Amino acid sequence: MIPSIILVRTQEAGNLGSAARAMKNMGITDLRLVNPTAKPNTPMARKMSMNAKDVLLSAKIFSDLNEAIQDLDLVVGTSRRFGKERDNFITSRDFGESLTTYPKDSRVGIVFGHEVTGLVNEELALCQKIVTIPVHEAYPSLNLAQAVMLVCYEVFMGTNAKDFPIPALDESERATVKDFENMIADLRELLMESGFLDRNNPDHLMRLLRNLFNRASLSDSEVKIFRGVCRQMRWWKKT
Amino acid sequence: MIPSIILVRTQEAGNLGSAARAMKNMGITDLRLVNPTAKPNTPMARKMSMNAKDVLLSAKIFSDLNEAIQDLDLVVGTSRRFGKERDNFITSRDFGESLTTYPKDSRVGIVFGHEVTGLVNEELALCQKIVTIPVHEAYPSLNLAQAVMLVCYEVFMGTNAKDFPIPALDESERATVKDFENMIADLRELLMESGFLDRNNPDHLMRLLRNLFNRASLSDSEVKIFRGVCRQMRWWKKT
Repeated sequence: MIPSIILVRTQEAGNLGSAARAMKNMGITDLRLVNPTAKPNTPMARKMSMNAKDVLLSAKIFSDLNEAIQDLDLVVGTSRRFGKERDNFITSRDFGESLTTYPKDSRVGIVFGHEVTGLVNEELALCQKIVTIPVHEAYPSLNLAQAVMLVCYEVFMGTNAKDFPIPALDESERATVKDFENMIADLRELLMESGFLDRNNPDHLMRLLRNLFNRASLSDSEVKIFRGVCRQMRWWKKT
Repeated sequence: MIPSIILVRTQEAGNLGSAARAMKNMGITDLRLVNPTAKPNTPMARKMSMNAKDVLLSAKIFSDLNEAIQDLDLVVGTSRRFGKERDNFITSRDFGESLTTYPKDSRVGIVFGHEVTGLVNEELALCQKIVTIPVHEAYPSLNLAQAVMLVCYEVFMGTNAKDFPIPALDESERATVKDFENMIADLRELLMESGFLDRNNPDHLMRLLRNLFNRASLSDSEVKIFRGVCRQMRWWKKT
């Protein structure tokens, strides 16, 4: 799906800038402003947008919400007031997770209301779904740009972030089985020598240690470090 | 688990206030500041905290990170630079989802670094896990308070929000079966009269309509609305 963020009657220029930054952080670039009190090309908006000035300054401006959504396939409002039409409410998390089922080219607008009053009923009526962000009852009022960030994050998680690359241990760096087993044997011998392992049942504790090392999937250099520790302990004992 | 947010060397007072608000939105109240350049009791910090001044102004201040984490059971850093110790990296989402396995009384500190430089290696070395927030490669640099919000949101989702109440239709408002069936019968009759339904097989289309109404789980007042529509159509036909 191709997301658009639609801000209605925004009053704080800082929020326009922060929202643009949050969007770009999550790979979203289409910003639409409906009847904004704050203007995008102002010092505060530009300052808060940091390196997302492109998103901020290419925002399209409309005079009413209906006009802003004409080219969209689905319009999703955001609100925390559960009104009469509450059957359409879903959490931000469920919204993000549902996006895998959306056609790749479907255009989805996500609408955020005024900082204080949110979206009014006539605006919510134009939305086919209402997304609500789980919040603590002690202080449920989110800053507008924070709400934009949370929804953009869920959109990103639901569409692009499946393959977000947390680099795993490079296989070329992994210790060979031979080196690993030599390290385990060396460690076992040291722990026997030092009296740490029970001579009658040394392998119980060694199995636990081996499990831990296996789970960590040691690299070549880490194996070398442990061999070094064993060597050092033996040297130290003799001094 | 009991979370603490630890901000290290924060330079922008606005970020202190916004972070305090984000924390309180997600039910987190223990804020710790390590060597802050910005001070919590300043106009900008107070302004951005809105109704979270209690969190902001009760922040504990420490001169180094090691001192700030003495009473904690687990320290989690945040970073987007995958260094040598990348085996400990997990995404914010996986971190949130892992929290169900934490003991209820375990104290977990989540550490955020300086706005520009993040956490340096000596600070990361004090962290047992590193949380990273999935971001788009076009602009991966998050505002500090936005990063705090995303992690607090994941903590809230992973601990409290399981039962976040999206109110379902109040059962006392649901239309009785009798009223619902009378409405269906009325609608069927109208659609027969008007020639919308095939006289030889009226129930095929009616089944589809009935499914739709069932899925929506109509309230008493919604049933009344449909009865009104049927009545109006008949009146309109005669005029």
